[in-house]
Amino acid sequence: MARVVVDVMPKTEILDPQGQAIVGALARLGFDGISDVRQGKRFELEVADGVDDLTLEKIAADVLANTVIEDYTVTRVQVQA
Amino acid sequence: MARVVVDVMPKTEILDPQGQAIVGALARLGFDGISDVRQGKRFELEVADGVDDLTLEKIAADVLANTVIEDYTVTRVQVQA
Repeated sequence: MARVVVDVMPKTEILDPQGQAIVGALARLGFDGISDVRQGKRFELEVADGVDDLTLEKIAADVLANTVIEDYTVTRVQVQA
Repeated sequence: MARVVVDVMPKTEILDPQGQAIVGALARLGFDGISDVRQGKRFELEVADGVDDLTLEKIAADVLANTVIEDYTVTRVQVQA
């Protein structure tokens, strides 16, 4: 069994209104020095050992991310015997 | 300027219906071997050098996460001069 993390973030050229709302909220709450926030998604998958990296790429690209507006990274974080 | 990543995930004892929906969708699409998915949020912050770790903890706990149902981790990933 392996733990796989898929991080999905809006592409840098895509506006992120949620992130901008957080920047504004932090300034109003008195937290200074935060110049930019971008909000994305994090998926933690429990994956059987037989699942290969190509399949994980396909899951990330086809199911978890919208690759028109989002970038993703796939990371295996833990492998147990 | 530093890049700070805040990962926010539903606590393990909290049901995650979004994640369960993804498990079901993956099985229907023919991706076998994915036994669990949990969906959370990832925030990438651009932070001025003067912002200390205590302030970042407070931002994560008070603004970005709902600590009743979510856990968070704060990670500094990059520091530029």
